[in-house]
Amino acid sequence: MYIALDAMGGDNAPRSNVEGAVLFAREYGIGVYLVGDKDILEKELKRTGAKNLPIEIIHAEEIIEMDEPPSTAVRRKRKSSMYLAGRLVREGRAQAFVSAGNTGAAMAISKFVVGAAEGIERPGIAVAFPTKKGKPTVLIDVGANVDCRPMHLVYFAVMGHTYVKEILKSSESPKVGILSIGEEEGKGNDLVKDTYPLLKMTGLNFVGNAEGRDIFTGDFDVIVCDGFVGNIVLKTSESLGSIIVEMIKQEVEKSIISKIGAALMLPALKRFKKKADYAEYGGAPLLGTKGTCIITHGSADAKAIKNALKVASQFEETHFNDKLKENLESLLPKELRE
Amino acid sequence: MYIALDAMGGDNAPRSNVEGAVLFAREYGIGVYLVGDKDILEKELKRTGAKNLPIEIIHAEEIIEMDEPPSTAVRRKRKSSMYLAGRLVREGRAQAFVSAGNTGAAMAISKFVVGAAEGIERPGIAVAFPTKKGKPTVLIDVGANVDCRPMHLVYFAVMGHTYVKEILKSSESPKVGILSIGEEEGKGNDLVKDTYPLLKMTGLNFVGNAEGRDIFTGDFDVIVCDGFVGNIVLKTSESLGSIIVEMIKQEVEKSIISKIGAALMLPALKRFKKKADYAEYGGAPLLGTKGTCIITHGSADAKAIKNALKVASQFEETHFNDKLKENLESLLPKELRE
Repeated sequence: MYIALDAMGGDNAPRSNVEGAVLFAREYGIGVYLVGDKDILEKELKRTGAKNLPIEIIHAEEIIEMDEPPSTAVRRKRKSSMYLAGRLVREGRAQAFVSAGNTGAAMAISKFVVGAAEGIERPGIAVAFPTKKGKPTVLIDVGANVDCRPMHLVYFAVMGHTYVKEILKSSESPKVGILSIGEEEGKGNDLVKDTYPLLKMTGLNFVGNAEGRDIFTGDFDVIVCDGFVGNIVLKTSESLGSIIVEMIKQEVEKSIISKIGAALMLPALKRFKKKADYAEYGGAPLLGTKGTCIITHGSADAKAIKNALKVASQFEETHFNDKLKENLESLLPKELRE
Repeated sequence: MYIALDAMGGDNAPRSNVEGAVLFAREYGIGVYLVGDKDILEKELKRTGAKNLPIEIIHAEEIIEMDEPPSTAVRRKRKSSMYLAGRLVREGRAQAFVSAGNTGAAMAISKFVVGAAEGIERPGIAVAFPTKKGKPTVLIDVGANVDCRPMHLVYFAVMGHTYVKEILKSSESPKVGILSIGEEEGKGNDLVKDTYPLLKMTGLNFVGNAEGRDIFTGDFDVIVCDGFVGNIVLKTSESLGSIIVEMIKQEVEKSIISKIGAALMLPALKRFKKKADYAEYGGAPLLGTKGTCIITHGSADAKAIKNALKVASQFEETHFNDKLKENLESLLPKELRE
């Protein structure tokens, strides 16, 4: 197995990416293609002192910047580290693609370069949110598909179900909900109202509407929504989390006693941060693509990169796409299959 | 001026509602109709020891429960405290309606009993979120309208603009954005793409797309969205805020040193809570109704009820609806006015 890592993507690239690849290859003995500027990557690799690891550098002369529109990534920058990493999967040289770079571009490359798996019209990006109960809740789709039809959401539900069962292993019979604005059936926008009866027809453990507040309670294992709503929820949550921490900090700074208090609380705050960080789950997979595509946080450090590579390898080892195909066949009644 | 208060709605009703009304009437000398069970309210009023205040009890024999569907509130429970409070505004006996009860029911009563203001097709509910910069960002609509057309969002933008200028007074030329999933024009779902050019045609200070993360930065004064997305964002944020606090608490409980730390930090945490609590803005107004309708938090205490009554009176004192009408005329080009 080889995993193609976009070595130039992310705030701490290429250093953290190279370090993460080394940690991963050393611990698991699985191959990594480091895709990016050859000279820079050779230097970084040397610096780590790593030897005899299954790591290979693939030269790429361009970089997708964090603020470039996704269309550039796919149409124009075909010599970029991200594009070439995706192409390695398309060509079958690598089995998985991992990037900590520009999220929109990584999604575009996963969709258009790596491509959708057989029988899947729209891959969906899944994020595992930490919850009160300790086990994660998977929200899908968080941005790959802006305008969705009901059947897309049904497929997201099966993808999410398979992700929870096979990769996260947090539930044997994942509870699936649809994101809406009220608990009762019949509440929601047109998309929700049209999708609800279809989800009821499936063999999924569908428990009905989930509200915004249910994302963090742990009462659901999978919550489906269109990528517009999901992306807004994801960005709102990320931002709110960091702003709460910042606002508390500002207040704490105002007095020496609170500062001492904060210092005493530090270990507890660190434990909390670890629990709340979805990077712990190795980033967000794009489910339903030909190979495995993992999009991890722009601020990923070496450990987060290693985690993302590990999750990518788990997708391959568990034959995720075969399981997904089986589940689509067994959970969807014939009339819902395309 | 008289404000109709649903005295039976909310987790702490009727006690906190009565106490809040007394605090308000005493400080501002403005009249309050306490709508609810006469015997109970008389007893509660007596308990406060209040005398010679412009408070009048209006008997209502039913109560809308927190979990009842909004349709019940409007169609069946026409003797409820909430329904009758709304009707006092419709009949012109009161100028404003305030409820801490069932939010969906309060919205339904504001829309169908109080009714839309002249020239407004869809009232929108606005929430002022606390931001990093200290000044609030208003999100509108957060749940009154599930499926929206572009012109509804344009009207929400003018309502939000007027709310920021006349009531919150946090900006002279409010920056208006539309909630989407990417900064550039052309990003978003069909509704966003169709609304964007219309907002550009207005005299509003329209600055383009806002992302989920922009809700808390303070870079926007008003962000418009449809009520489906807005409601999910609101509930996600409320829930995430309380879950972060709870998760931190759980970690703190694990060691005596962190507990001491937390105790020392208490004043700072309280200041933070005050800043982050949107009840400080007196609850969420439903903009574009005939009278003023304020929906405040179910957990409202006496101070929050007093705040909500105060905001309601400010809407009347500033002649909010006249200002809104003027703004619709001056900010929307003729071809956009209905």
